[in-house]
Amino acid sequence: MTTVYLNGQYVPKEQAMIPVEDRGFVFGDGIYEVVRIIKGRVFAWDAHAARLANGLAGLRISDAGAESATLKAVCERLVRDNGMTDGEATVYIQVSRGAAPRTHHFPPAGTPTTVYASASVFKPNFAMRDIGAKGITMPDIRWARCDLKTVNLLGPVLARQAAQEAGAYEALLHRDGMVTEGAATNAFMVVDGVLRTYPLSHYILPGITRALIVEIIREHSIRFEERPVSLTDLHRAEEIFVCGTTTDVQPIVELDGKKVGAGVPGAVTVRIKEAFAKKLYA
Amino acid sequence: MTTVYLNGQYVPKEQAMIPVEDRGFVFGDGIYEVVRIIKGRVFAWDAHAARLANGLAGLRISDAGAESATLKAVCERLVRDNGMTDGEATVYIQVSRGAAPRTHHFPPAGTPTTVYASASVFKPNFAMRDIGAKGITMPDIRWARCDLKTVNLLGPVLARQAAQEAGAYEALLHRDGMVTEGAATNAFMVVDGVLRTYPLSHYILPGITRALIVEIIREHSIRFEERPVSLTDLHRAEEIFVCGTTTDVQPIVELDGKKVGAGVPGAVTVRIKEAFAKKLYA
Repeated sequence: MTTVYLNGQYVPKEQAMIPVEDRGFVFGDGIYEVVRIIKGRVFAWDAHAARLANGLAGLRISDAGAESATLKAVCERLVRDNGMTDGEATVYIQVSRGAAPRTHHFPPAGTPTTVYASASVFKPNFAMRDIGAKGITMPDIRWARCDLKTVNLLGPVLARQAAQEAGAYEALLHRDGMVTEGAATNAFMVVDGVLRTYPLSHYILPGITRALIVEIIREHSIRFEERPVSLTDLHRAEEIFVCGTTTDVQPIVELDGKKVGAGVPGAVTVRIKEAFAKKLYA
Repeated sequence: MTTVYLNGQYVPKEQAMIPVEDRGFVFGDGIYEVVRIIKGRVFAWDAHAARLANGLAGLRISDAGAESATLKAVCERLVRDNGMTDGEATVYIQVSRGAAPRTHHFPPAGTPTTVYASASVFKPNFAMRDIGAKGITMPDIRWARCDLKTVNLLGPVLARQAAQEAGAYEALLHRDGMVTEGAATNAFMVVDGVLRTYPLSHYILPGITRALIVEIIREHSIRFEERPVSLTDLHRAEEIFVCGTTTDVQPIVELDGKKVGAGVPGAVTVRIKEAFAKKLYA
């Protein structure tokens, strides 16, 4: 039986129910995080907690009950209570603006938020990370605040479904002719020998893995620019990889049915992938 | 005690709970409608049912359990069981892709959808409709499929909250310099003597009230174009009104703190408002 966390209580998942009037359900009015747990230890917690706090502030949702220390303890207990301390796990955390009679504008001050967390066993697909995966490209139809990790996720849902149906791992999104990020990952590409990624802005998620990779890039003195890559340049990129909390560093070796570079993970990608694995499993 | 409808059952609202894994809650993965009920009769049901079906098809959510006849009967029974047949009411209907372990891509085929409906007493604000209301303008930060009535509603939530804080009824949204619609309404403006509204496209909701107003405009031979109005032209419009299922025809007589026209509902607006009320209360 799986135990989850809901509004201060640890309950069997089957009993974790929310009112139909929850604004998470009727407006997608909430923020979430997915964190990685390795042998009971939360990876990069402070960065996730800071991003969650920033998202709540961005939507002006109260952080009462969703403070960093509280949620970190929730993650650790969920992993412990569900017997997941030996290997790897993920914890999904969501905070919504709570349940109230439906109005677009915010509910009365003091309406309690909904705080939910759930742990799952996680088994990284090491084989796919070694071999590389397929990608497709799609227009980025999301809203203009992709920097907030909200549960308004229909854009990514539809893009990931399209990727899945194309036999691909990820959909790389493009807005105004420029590659922003993957549907649920950040994206990096080597073009003309220079590694590039979209700069932090309202159009991409400030990925925790992305930030750690930028650190690695600097440590390794890899030629790098935070500058958008056009869709045209993406299609002639020497290397592509996507990254994220459950994706780590995932080479993309085929894009829209055509080989990327030699069709195997490139040298820059492999170097970063190995350096990231060292940080993750340190 | 209020009775609501959830997945085939009529239950007290307090008992209407959904699993935390419902994709409505974790992805905003659902479609909704709000219908108007006058003395127990659902107004413009066929149009609402068609839009709901179109939205479900657009997101590829099954319509099993959300067929037009089923939901119409649900609306009628909710209004009856809650003693709302004498005056006016609204029914909120939502269909989500159902509960399943979290993956961005769709859950396994056969995952039951969640179908929820709830009735509320509705009292139109006739005074505000007569006097007119205030509006503000804001960038339209929503995604590129505003034609689907999804519960990914953070854009409208934030815009309506800003309107409320400015003492306004509605926020008029602009994308690429053009006025698309209101946060929860469609918008019409008289510019240089011609009534105009944004054409049907992926950038606006195909409003049921909007469609009825277009009929009225044609019946009354009012000079009219479905052509975007620039933000600049909006600020010099002779008349502005917004419309919707719970808004009917609402004159906007002050925009961003400045009078629209003479600061009272204009002649074209009043004519359409009266014709619409006749249809509604026929």
